[in-house]
Amino acid sequence: MGDSDLWRELGQQLRVDAVRASAKAGSGHPTSSMSAADLAAVLLAAHFRYDYDDPKNSANDRLVFSKGHASPLVYGLFRAAGALSEEEFMTYRQFGSRLEGHPTPVLPWVDVATGSLGQGLPIGVGMAIAGKRLDRLPFRVWVICGDSEMAEGSMWEAAEHAAFYELDNLTAILDVNRLGQRGETMHGWDISSYSKRLHAFGWHTIEIDGHDVEQIDAAYREAESTDKPTAVVARTIKGKGYSKVENENGWHGKAIAEEAIEELGGVRNIIVDVPKPDHGEAHHFEPAPQEWPAYEVGSKISTRKAYGEALAALGSDDGEVVALDGEVSNSTFSEIFRDAHPDRFFEMYIAEQQMIAAAVGMQVLGWKPFASTFAAFTSRAYDFVRMAAVSRATIKVCGSHAGVSIGEDGPSQMGLEDLAAFRAVSSSTVLYPCDGNEAAKLVRAMADLGGISYLRTTRSDTPVIYGADEEFPVGGSKTLRSPDDEDVTIVAAGITVHEALKAADTLESEGISARVIDCYSVKPIDAETLRSIGTPIVTVEDHWAEGGLGEAVLAALADTDERPPLSLLAVREMPHSGKPAELLAAAGIDADHIAAAARSLVGARAPA
Amino acid sequence: MGDSDLWRELGQQLRVDAVRASAKAGSGHPTSSMSAADLAAVLLAAHFRYDYDDPKNSANDRLVFSKGHASPLVYGLFRAAGALSEEEFMTYRQFGSRLEGHPTPVLPWVDVATGSLGQGLPIGVGMAIAGKRLDRLPFRVWVICGDSEMAEGSMWEAAEHAAFYELDNLTAILDVNRLGQRGETMHGWDISSYSKRLHAFGWHTIEIDGHDVEQIDAAYREAESTDKPTAVVARTIKGKGYSKVENENGWHGKAIAEEAIEELGGVRNIIVDVPKPDHGEAHHFEPAPQEWPAYEVGSKISTRKAYGEALAALGSDDGEVVALDGEVSNSTFSEIFRDAHPDRFFEMYIAEQQMIAAAVGMQVLGWKPFASTFAAFTSRAYDFVRMAAVSRATIKVCGSHAGVSIGEDGPSQMGLEDLAAFRAVSSSTVLYPCDGNEAAKLVRAMADLGGISYLRTTRSDTPVIYGADEEFPVGGSKTLRSPDDEDVTIVAAGITVHEALKAADTLESEGISARVIDCYSVKPIDAETLRSIGTPIVTVEDHWAEGGLGEAVLAALADTDERPPLSLLAVREMPHSGKPAELLAAAGIDADHIAAAARSLVGARAPA
Repeated sequence: MGDSDLWRELGQQLRVDAVRASAKAGSGHPTSSMSAADLAAVLLAAHFRYDYDDPKNSANDRLVFSKGHASPLVYGLFRAAGALSEEEFMTYRQFGSRLEGHPTPVLPWVDVATGSLGQGLPIGVGMAIAGKRLDRLPFRVWVICGDSEMAEGSMWEAAEHAAFYELDNLTAILDVNRLGQRGETMHGWDISSYSKRLHAFGWHTIEIDGHDVEQIDAAYREAESTDKPTAVVARTIKGKGYSKVENENGWHGKAIAEEAIEELGGVRNIIVDVPKPDHGEAHHFEPAPQEWPAYEVGSKISTRKAYGEALAALGSDDGEVVALDGEVSNSTFSEIFRDAHPDRFFEMYIAEQQMIAAAVGMQVLGWKPFASTFAAFTSRAYDFVRMAAVSRATIKVCGSHAGVSIGEDGPSQMGLEDLAAFRAVSSSTVLYPCDGNEAAKLVRAMADLGGISYLRTTRSDTPVIYGADEEFPVGGSKTLRSPDDEDVTIVAAGITVHEALKAADTLESEGISARVIDCYSVKPIDAETLRSIGTPIVTVEDHWAEGGLGEAVLAALADTDERPPLSLLAVREMPHSGKPAELLAAAGIDADHIAAAARSLVGARAPA
Repeated sequence: MGDSDLWRELGQQLRVDAVRASAKAGSGHPTSSMSAADLAAVLLAAHFRYDYDDPKNSANDRLVFSKGHASPLVYGLFRAAGALSEEEFMTYRQFGSRLEGHPTPVLPWVDVATGSLGQGLPIGVGMAIAGKRLDRLPFRVWVICGDSEMAEGSMWEAAEHAAFYELDNLTAILDVNRLGQRGETMHGWDISSYSKRLHAFGWHTIEIDGHDVEQIDAAYREAESTDKPTAVVARTIKGKGYSKVENENGWHGKAIAEEAIEELGGVRNIIVDVPKPDHGEAHHFEPAPQEWPAYEVGSKISTRKAYGEALAALGSDDGEVVALDGEVSNSTFSEIFRDAHPDRFFEMYIAEQQMIAAAVGMQVLGWKPFASTFAAFTSRAYDFVRMAAVSRATIKVCGSHAGVSIGEDGPSQMGLEDLAAFRAVSSSTVLYPCDGNEAAKLVRAMADLGGISYLRTTRSDTPVIYGADEEFPVGGSKTLRSPDDEDVTIVAAGITVHEALKAADTLESEGISARVIDCYSVKPIDAETLRSIGTPIVTVEDHWAEGGLGEAVLAALADTDERPPLSLLAVREMPHSGKPAELLAAAGIDADHIAAAARSLVGARAPA
């Protein structure tokens, strides 16, 4: 069998397999798989270089199905590569199977979960940046994209960054089958609308018939030899190969009858001998340990500055640490890392989705990305963070300028929902330091955490209250005041720790003894310490009342037999502009309000 | 003074005012205001039609500062229009002032808050769609954009939708001053890089010198007469007019010395007589009330289907109701509205940020937008929802396919963080019905709610348990079982209500009496009912454990003196694919797990 015949046969095999798996499951996306089957067949049989026995090999090409709903095609490829048995292949979408409805890294050959459209290409950009600038290996990143998902802005963030970073190792394969879930896309089969846009963004583009295997092969060759990111824009037919559904609306995400198998020529069992990549050693950045930042008790520094200084030191200790920022590195202070380790810093401009996606892509290759922006703007990438958890990714995010305490810039710049958002992410760790030494130690701890870890930092300088030798285990807390015969306990984190200490002083002068806990580890929270509290509790946070520190404390105490009453102080009205102290007071989370809440809980009156 | 001289003088006035206001405040973005001052001056003096005494007038042109940090320029324009006194102008960024660090609708001439970059243009698209398709008035929408924010994918979602909807009433003015916050943008002064991209997206583009008032005027004239959305791509100088900072890096977001005022020629007090729009009556869609959907107790229907049917009925009752969907209208069932009211339905394709932004833009003109997609993908637009709250916008969002109960599609499609995310939004209402009649009634309630309201719907058909005449006030709950001598209370919402009822049956057969509460109003929650509970509590939700129903219940009980122990059942491990019942069981939130938790709380053993 000549190459072209093999490719055509393999394309048919992938179609038949998509039909078989979906029919067995009773659901799935066979028609979306069938449109891309020839594109995938030629890739696997003639261009892809991958060691299926060693999926973590840094020299492997990477293939991302940005259109993750074409999972029957993904799994069909694994079967065609000899990696997946027929038996397992037919477990598609069953409970307990590794072959989930949309691909996830439960399978070793899937690097990242897809299924939220518009994410695969920006993640591929991260992998390609890693290939060129970090690993420095000649692997290629192939991303199979749907046409519908080109409506997602994140695809254009990816287009922009791919061109800016000159990612000639990146090929996007656009499967333009014209039909979305509920009907035609904006551009239908006008494939030039995609190529002219991508061309304007600085890409090399090639328009082809996506069912002509020679055209596909030629396009991939051209992509491999150009010095720009390349888009192969392929006109395809949804449901191609089964006349009853070809190019018909109404068949998205529906299993089709097994009678299609006959029209497609029956089951094949072609196994492709996918060539392994040339052995290549990924580049390593030599560690050059430097002194860890240490701040003197009583001095002042913002936790965001400490983040930057600690991250730079961490980068010296650990050559796998890389940093990304959303064009605010002089605010988040990731610029300190940039200046210390320019080869490992990536400016992502004002494109937070691309920033998180690039971090996800880089960690696939074993790098440890720290991505930073204002806490408020992490919300821009929330779907990417959510999906990073589905990808079982290990990324670190720092959100600066949290809370009303930023002052004059006003509510658009105040992260007031970030604790809630990051707590509600699977595998997440949420940390919120109150001083420079604590921030620095938590940055170090983040380096070794799996999953999604989030550090919340504060804009203003705050007093250093811990010695530089203090340790801050994740899941722990610090009891800052522990009076005998305590009347009330104040649980705070970050900026409110300092307000809590002031409140405790005030209360002490009135004869009320307040324990003060710095709950720097918001998730996991120090349940043991919290459950030992025998007094009424005031929690106080520079965050909306929902989903933040207060509710985390309540959850830790939920199933105890006797729980003390708890007064949850948090931001409850839309803040305005003003000085930090004015805004903390207006939000009811400053020392005066904490003291008042404590008094109320213990039944004391305010002093005259 | 000739027109050109006036425009130049007004530009200088706006610069001086930006310097003055920021210097007084000690912070702000004068340099970013100075680059756009001439663009704004010519607009105000020669093209903008607006009645400052009647900002809600539907015939007014709309001006959105997508680059919201240029707030001194925004406020300077209001002063130049005679709308803002010198005295108030100088309160910029002070606590209690309406002149916040970034513009918000606390001022009547600001339609929407900006300051999270990349949002103004997509919101402008919503306004322009309203102008052409809903209000059917000839007003123009002008959006002043920064060059840095063109890196946000949302700007390209806007570009795509503006061309698709043929918004010849939309003009984007790009202030290409070359410098972002921490340095040069990707494209610097290569203004053709922007115009060729926008041209490829289907826009008319005009490149100009942004400090040449005649060129600006000619460009605006051209924009007013073309039949496409138009981008005026203007090369400008950051800090223009004060030689010490012109085109210098390091001056972003910093007040500059008042000595600049002298170089700029001193304070002016030009008041522009901005022409009012021609009187125009906005189009109204006549109501044609139809029968409200009613489902028979014991029948089955999914809450998502009930959403679609109720929305269509609501649209008949209320001509101000419009709907948008993110290319999944056959899943969310907003297609029922589309078919009933095609003139008021807007396909937003797979662009959730643009969808929410368009809703925000439409509500500025008084429309009542309902935007729907999968609950999981509302996370894509979280920053837009957050900012909608800062905009004091009234929008309604429906997230379908919530939770593990969707089944085979797997975790990428499961909304498991939506309750946490929407609860942590200021002004939000969060509703989660369990049957068709409840869903329909809550849709009706949403029509009259202010702020951000969110409805969570379920994929699968569920039994109708309420009669069609039942009422479901926002902030209420329904007690479905209320046995005498109750031992335990189960608080559920949505899909878990049905599991809770099954669990109560099981428990009853074991001699354990369980009260069952349907907590359909997650925010505001029915604190009064919850605080009356005297038994141990099981909460159960198809959502991550953080920030959802369980924590909402805990928060409602926080400050009670004696609180019963609470067992919080929620999703705690990453789900896989499988049948809905398998996944509810695997997540520990099905009837069996509820019964087990209840037994454990009351100290009973499972039956042998």
